[in-house]
Amino acid sequence: MAEEKSTTQKAILVFKPTGQVVEVEVGTLLSDAAVQAGVALNLPCGGQGRCGRCRVKVEHGAISHRSGTRLTSAEMNEGWALGCQAVVKGDAVVFVPEQEQVEVEFATKTVGAERIALAAEFSGELDPSVRRAHVTIEPPSLEDQTTDWDRLLRELSLQHGFQNVTASLPMLRTLGRDLREADWNATAILEMGDPVQNPCAQPRLIDLLPGDQTDRCYGVAIDIGTTSNVVYLVDLARGKVLDRASAYSGQISAGEDVISRIIFSQKRDGLSRLQSMVLKTLNGLLEELSSRNQIPLRQISKAVVAGNTTMIQLFLAIDPTTIREMPFIPTISQSLPVTAEELGLNINPQATVDCLPIVGAYVGADITAGVVASGMADTDALTLFIDVGTNGEIVLGNRDWLITCACSAGPAFEGSGVRHGMRATAGAIEELWIDHRTFEPTYQTIGQLPARGICGSGMIGLLAEMFITGIVDKGGKIRRDLPTPRIRVGDHGGEYVVVWANQSGIGADIVINEVDIENLLRTKGAIYAGFSVLVQSVGLELADVEQVFIAGAFGQYINVEKAIQIGLLPDMPWDRFRYLGNTSALGAFYSLVSRPMRRHVLKVSKNMTYMELSADNTFYDQFMSALFLPHTDITAFPSVMRVLTQRE
Amino acid sequence: MAEEKSTTQKAILVFKPTGQVVEVEVGTLLSDAAVQAGVALNLPCGGQGRCGRCRVKVEHGAISHRSGTRLTSAEMNEGWALGCQAVVKGDAVVFVPEQEQVEVEFATKTVGAERIALAAEFSGELDPSVRRAHVTIEPPSLEDQTTDWDRLLRELSLQHGFQNVTASLPMLRTLGRDLREADWNATAILEMGDPVQNPCAQPRLIDLLPGDQTDRCYGVAIDIGTTSNVVYLVDLARGKVLDRASAYSGQISAGEDVISRIIFSQKRDGLSRLQSMVLKTLNGLLEELSSRNQIPLRQISKAVVAGNTTMIQLFLAIDPTTIREMPFIPTISQSLPVTAEELGLNINPQATVDCLPIVGAYVGADITAGVVASGMADTDALTLFIDVGTNGEIVLGNRDWLITCACSAGPAFEGSGVRHGMRATAGAIEELWIDHRTFEPTYQTIGQLPARGICGSGMIGLLAEMFITGIVDKGGKIRRDLPTPRIRVGDHGGEYVVVWANQSGIGADIVINEVDIENLLRTKGAIYAGFSVLVQSVGLELADVEQVFIAGAFGQYINVEKAIQIGLLPDMPWDRFRYLGNTSALGAFYSLVSRPMRRHVLKVSKNMTYMELSADNTFYDQFMSALFLPHTDITAFPSVMRVLTQRE
Repeated sequence: MAEEKSTTQKAILVFKPTGQVVEVEVGTLLSDAAVQAGVALNLPCGGQGRCGRCRVKVEHGAISHRSGTRLTSAEMNEGWALGCQAVVKGDAVVFVPEQEQVEVEFATKTVGAERIALAAEFSGELDPSVRRAHVTIEPPSLEDQTTDWDRLLRELSLQHGFQNVTASLPMLRTLGRDLREADWNATAILEMGDPVQNPCAQPRLIDLLPGDQTDRCYGVAIDIGTTSNVVYLVDLARGKVLDRASAYSGQISAGEDVISRIIFSQKRDGLSRLQSMVLKTLNGLLEELSSRNQIPLRQISKAVVAGNTTMIQLFLAIDPTTIREMPFIPTISQSLPVTAEELGLNINPQATVDCLPIVGAYVGADITAGVVASGMADTDALTLFIDVGTNGEIVLGNRDWLITCACSAGPAFEGSGVRHGMRATAGAIEELWIDHRTFEPTYQTIGQLPARGICGSGMIGLLAEMFITGIVDKGGKIRRDLPTPRIRVGDHGGEYVVVWANQSGIGADIVINEVDIENLLRTKGAIYAGFSVLVQSVGLELADVEQVFIAGAFGQYINVEKAIQIGLLPDMPWDRFRYLGNTSALGAFYSLVSRPMRRHVLKVSKNMTYMELSADNTFYDQFMSALFLPHTDITAFPSVMRVLTQRE
Repeated sequence: MAEEKSTTQKAILVFKPTGQVVEVEVGTLLSDAAVQAGVALNLPCGGQGRCGRCRVKVEHGAISHRSGTRLTSAEMNEGWALGCQAVVKGDAVVFVPEQEQVEVEFATKTVGAERIALAAEFSGELDPSVRRAHVTIEPPSLEDQTTDWDRLLRELSLQHGFQNVTASLPMLRTLGRDLREADWNATAILEMGDPVQNPCAQPRLIDLLPGDQTDRCYGVAIDIGTTSNVVYLVDLARGKVLDRASAYSGQISAGEDVISRIIFSQKRDGLSRLQSMVLKTLNGLLEELSSRNQIPLRQISKAVVAGNTTMIQLFLAIDPTTIREMPFIPTISQSLPVTAEELGLNINPQATVDCLPIVGAYVGADITAGVVASGMADTDALTLFIDVGTNGEIVLGNRDWLITCACSAGPAFEGSGVRHGMRATAGAIEELWIDHRTFEPTYQTIGQLPARGICGSGMIGLLAEMFITGIVDKGGKIRRDLPTPRIRVGDHGGEYVVVWANQSGIGADIVINEVDIENLLRTKGAIYAGFSVLVQSVGLELADVEQVFIAGAFGQYINVEKAIQIGLLPDMPWDRFRYLGNTSALGAFYSLVSRPMRRHVLKVSKNMTYMELSADNTFYDQFMSALFLPHTDITAFPSVMRVLTQRE
């Protein structure tokens, strides 16, 4: 660097596409030159060369790179540079990409994992269990006094080949009137079940509509998360997601994690209150979808439901007590026949509500659905599937075998157990960088509002930055000797002020303290220990994992690099990571439109080997080792070692 | 008779078993002699020699018979005589049988038909659809975390061979707790359905009791009549009726016949109100049976229900409107799966409620059950089955064929449409005779209470007596020229006073008028026309009928002779008639304890040919001819002709 400072030559810089021109001294930082030219480069990390958001392309002329962590050699050869790390060496033409484009780059390359969008259409062969049959029926006469039901059955058999059709009482109650009002010309909606799975499946009449309405047939795919519930409205005739709606679970007031909910369920009326809460949330979403898409609720003829084991049992009002007690036994492993009416779900009362199968007490239908939706059960590649929600569930395997475990990660990343933690809503800090010289943070909030707290991805970023900048040591303790007023001692030990009161949206300092950090370490440690034990248990190493799928709404916002830096994810090339989003809802959608997919979920649930971590000493050992930043064994994190070395 | 009066000889009579002795003149009536001796002979017909209730046996000595209608020559040869018709010819020893014994004779011989008691035990092979399975289960552990339901299924399969067992949601809701409270040692109660009938029948868990409770398993057979409801409590382990309870239908307040009920059902909430009414009645009976027999309602694991088509549909709350409208179509012909909980029947909530199959709008499950219970579908003998309830249903046939019809007889014999008609309860005149000289009646009431009205059998007796004694002519008009104050003209034409106000239990005269008689004629005419048309339709004659089964609670009290006299029953030897009682409840009981019997009912319902009388002119002609006493064609009633000849 010394040689650059000694020059006093001037250089002319042209910034494209806007065309601003500026003259600066050779040796000036490109980002400083941009400021002089009135061009805004994005510097979330405060110009440390760590976030890669200030990338520009030098089209003519030369620059020198201080640091190139964020760029590949190929990119550097093409002229790409980081504004904050590029030093002006002479006249140059610099192209500043649009912010949007940088964001996309950031999302796919810089953060390290490909985001796979949810398929809103099902590409396989449509084969829903709900069928529509238009029938015209000879009206009864004194010569043929066959009953209404037998008469309908006769035509369903003659015109459509449906045999042994059954119906429940409420359908029969108005059948006579319905047939006559339809003038003996009607569309029967039938739930066929799956005769491949159960040869005894009998078609069941769930609705009778006047005239030919075979083109109108809908279903819903539901994901009941501990924190949020999602409903997809699906066109069963076309295998397409028409719309989505989501809301926080109404059960949050009864506890933030499944254990608190189970405890709540044991109170007087607790179970039925919990069921009412989830139904209220879901029925609200259904109402919203129905009115927005002008589809009557009664025309929603099926619901497929995914969710963790406790959420499924609470939805069905099946006592979940034994899920929490040793040896952790759920009541059912897969759905038995149940109608929307029995449950109180506000769709066609006779519609089947099909809850997808679970694996065990802590590996639920969200995971079986997710594994199928992710495609990991159809690939040869050794895949690690991680769903970090309120709990962490992990699956390892491929088309030949699947092994799974659950770690009670705790809801720290969902904002619970962390003083200023919050869910990913408006005002939450979702991204954050700390200047390693000044220890001043730069952050971004959801909705660009004054900060109100820190959500999961923000927490991962904050912890990683504190670690990389040396604010926190590998044991999670805050160094108190650093020259910044942001570090101080509070009620919970050392703390770091992320946002001063006068800039926050809550009128108080937003801080992170050592107790918060301890909780975050426990959460990330449990997850890391979980997949480590899984991999070990089959005699493999983490390096053998060919791809890592990150599922769950939370996963969508994780910065892979930072997650590696804190030791939440294994240190491996970023291109092995894939963000899949809400695979639980996706698996429910696939199961709704395709009986083969539904069978696939069942098969996966039966073939998945569940590993009970509480019965495993290895887990405890791994967990203890993972309670550090990034891990006791730093050699397992070479990329982090590199960054730390650079820092020093 | 003149020669007897001329004697003045005395004779000594000894009455056994009491030993009273009396001296009377030769030529005295034995009944008068008995009065002198202080011996009470029963003279319901007032000494006309018609009722046969004063029968005595002359053990020594001689008497002469004025009339012997009630006695066979064999009986006369044995010394039997009617007290009111026997004239003393010399010293004699007369045995007066106990009243009870006479009653029995009266029931079996005098009235003319054999009463067949309901079988309170099922003599065939027990094969109920409800099964009990005691299972001991290995408790779950960390090594075997199989869910509770799968664990139970495994043992039901291993220990009992039950496959594909299913359960509804409410059973699962407490399964975890139930299994643990039972300490993994429990009795499963399963509804097996009938795999012979439906190969897709899956066993369904309906209860789980702690320990071995395989010996306790109950069911109920229910007959829902328009007028009264009957419940039999049945021990399914032994195939035995343990107890019975009956009550008038709670629906009576909503109409006395099925048509009024259907009209009521069309009012706002009418249908659900009617269903509540029948449920209230049945649940009351169930409560009564449960507490009297100390059997918890939850241990009643199945209900089989018989009743007419409208009653079945109202019980299920299936809109019955179309039953009443041309062309008279019920909604269902046989039960679809329904649980006690869905219906609100207060037994085990998961118990199947099985409504027996019907034939048509006016030939219901009471008839299919009755035909099977009567055995007519298993005999070679040409059988006529008549069920006179609020409606009249008639079946003709044998093991090879069955044909049926319904005639809207109307509830005249059940006390409706007749001014002083009443149901067969305390104070109802059930038997009646009229002196053909004085036109004074002698009657008997239920409970020996002051008369409050006239029930069905009383009405038949009254009409027959009025006809035989000439008070009423063959057209149903009351003769106004007879020398008795009992005949007078009232608001409804001629009327006959049966009971004077000062002797009645209602403080007013009890009368029968010409409008009442018209209604009775219509009722009996419809029934007579019904079976006449049936018999004709298959090219036979009434004389070909080998046996006549009279079913229904009402039938139990019909006096065959009098029923023939008014032309309600065909004139044939009395020994062809059989009273069967409540065959509907009996058929339900058989179906409850034996799946083969249940299948038999279904087969019968399908094989029975229904003849719609409203579509048949022959019926109208027959009906018009049957509106007379006993019939336009008196030659079809030779026994009545004989009685009339005697009278004249």
